[in-house]
Amino acid sequence: MRDAIPVLVLGTGQMGCGIARLVLEKPGLALAGAWDRRAELHGLDLGRVIGIERDLGITVGADLAFVIAECRPRVAIQATCSRLDEAAPQILTLLQHGVHVISIAEEMACPHHSSPKLAREMDVLARSRGVAVAGTGINPGFVLDRLIITLTGVCADIRSITARRVNDLSPYGPSVMAAQGVGLSPEAFREGVADGSVVGHVGFPESIHLIADAVGWEVERIEERREPIIARVRRETPRITVEPGQAAGCLHTAVAYRDGEAVINLIHPQQVLPSAEGIETGDSIEIRGTPDVRLSGSPEIPGGTGTMALAVNTIPVILTAPPGLHTLTDLPAPAAMLGGARGLHTEGHP
Amino acid sequence: MRDAIPVLVLGTGQMGCGIARLVLEKPGLALAGAWDRRAELHGLDLGRVIGIERDLGITVGADLAFVIAECRPRVAIQATCSRLDEAAPQILTLLQHGVHVISIAEEMACPHHSSPKLAREMDVLARSRGVAVAGTGINPGFVLDRLIITLTGVCADIRSITARRVNDLSPYGPSVMAAQGVGLSPEAFREGVADGSVVGHVGFPESIHLIADAVGWEVERIEERREPIIARVRRETPRITVEPGQAAGCLHTAVAYRDGEAVINLIHPQQVLPSAEGIETGDSIEIRGTPDVRLSGSPEIPGGTGTMALAVNTIPVILTAPPGLHTLTDLPAPAAMLGGARGLHTEGHP
Repeated sequence: MRDAIPVLVLGTGQMGCGIARLVLEKPGLALAGAWDRRAELHGLDLGRVIGIERDLGITVGADLAFVIAECRPRVAIQATCSRLDEAAPQILTLLQHGVHVISIAEEMACPHHSSPKLAREMDVLARSRGVAVAGTGINPGFVLDRLIITLTGVCADIRSITARRVNDLSPYGPSVMAAQGVGLSPEAFREGVADGSVVGHVGFPESIHLIADAVGWEVERIEERREPIIARVRRETPRITVEPGQAAGCLHTAVAYRDGEAVINLIHPQQVLPSAEGIETGDSIEIRGTPDVRLSGSPEIPGGTGTMALAVNTIPVILTAPPGLHTLTDLPAPAAMLGGARGLHTEGHP
Repeated sequence: MRDAIPVLVLGTGQMGCGIARLVLEKPGLALAGAWDRRAELHGLDLGRVIGIERDLGITVGADLAFVIAECRPRVAIQATCSRLDEAAPQILTLLQHGVHVISIAEEMACPHHSSPKLAREMDVLARSRGVAVAGTGINPGFVLDRLIITLTGVCADIRSITARRVNDLSPYGPSVMAAQGVGLSPEAFREGVADGSVVGHVGFPESIHLIADAVGWEVERIEERREPIIARVRRETPRITVEPGQAAGCLHTAVAYRDGEAVINLIHPQQVLPSAEGIETGDSIEIRGTPDVRLSGSPEIPGGTGTMALAVNTIPVILTAPPGLHTLTDLPAPAAMLGGARGLHTEGHP
């Protein structure tokens, strides 16, 4: 067996901890180090932080450059934030030190459109250091973009694309609840949308640009809407209770126009306990074209587990990618990494 | 706009003709030439052969090397056959002349396992000429492999994969009907399976090896079964009538074992008019693992249109692939090519 690939994890929140545990399970990978911004975690043993009840001999580091020098990772998984401006300094430091980077920051799914200058900087730096960097995740990164793009491959022509993801926020913590406006009155919800505290889903422009770029469509504008999902019955979870008349979550939609026509419709209501009102969670994609393509599944592909798996499964893809900044459309799809080192082939067939 | 990419089409059966018509529709592509084995087509204008009722000034050629020299294609789509031994001489000639090759021959989806020597020969030749070659198609190539592999990306672990494709053979001609045993008595069907005249689906080993290689599973054996689908009612189409008690088609299944466990189950009943007995056509994939993933769609993604589209949509992918023989797991997914030359980017982002 080849030597295990040393992996550095940035971020020890719910995602980062799950990713670290998954790296530990994979025979071809070695958990080499961890970094977090939060001072209260610095110096703690990573095993305790990720909840495995044994020491790993790896402490959570405070200084990223020092952590890199100490653990010499080949690849880092960055799981600290959603926004590109927060993620960029970490990513640039990793690239500077010749470390491949997989980011689950939503805005890293397609930074070329929102931040072309930063994207160019990452690309140039990655190329100069001979490493690759890309964003991934369940959404953006999979359900509302990669899966759609993959399905378009069977189409000779397409008139429109509509995709819907209905999920249940119940497992999430207070920051997610606040960002989705859970428990707010309709008025407070609308004020929250106006002042930016009710965010809804982060990633619609990314998914739309990924799809449009993949099929060669010029999108002239994107319209996003955020509406409260008003509970008609009491929705109670161990973490939160939503009374009738309050927002159970956010119905966030995005429509992309081309030549005045709505060509991409993405619909993503996020709420607690949709089942309380008989609403089934699930993912569905409908392409109207030649031929029509429809695919759906219920329940939805779980966001947390799915993102952790995608991040780790992208390791063999990023290690064999050409140097530079990539989007998922440039790269082969990551597959489940079940075979240990064998899955980490660094040469193509045959 | 960059110059259109000259495309050569091999084969002018149902698939080759549809592919040629699609190439004509795409602004970034130029239909440059056509070749067919059948002497009765040689010298005919391709426009008439593919049924567009106007001359294209391209005649169907008899000598492949001569056709290549004359039309100087950058890429060829090979749509003449299912089997690798038939396809190989054409593919090797194309590679020899520095032409990229996309093949819809089922066995080209994964030639490394069935014909490692031939695969090696293609790979070495393609590398020496600086061109790429790969197989594609709806099945193998998409529903029972690429789509499954893509979905495994969200999984941390997988216990088993089951996928089913139920289609309707009604649009197909007599050779497909014979290969599926349509209209045979149960006894004649079983004799046909024994003597090789009832073939069922071509491509199960290819799909299984693609999946297993992608996730890093060692498959120890594959069991294929071909059973007659006995009509209980009369099934009548303009082309064929199946009486009750006769075979309406072939229930072909393949099971792959790993450590004695059935880990991949592919189920593909092909028959005429399943609707006559209330059977819905469709595609479905179920992954049992962490997390479970289920996705399905009805009706099935149409095989003919889907394969033609995949072949043409693979052109930008093959033109930017590293030289050599590829399987779909090595390459980015082809997306619908809707934007003309823009879809034919030859450089990555940004």
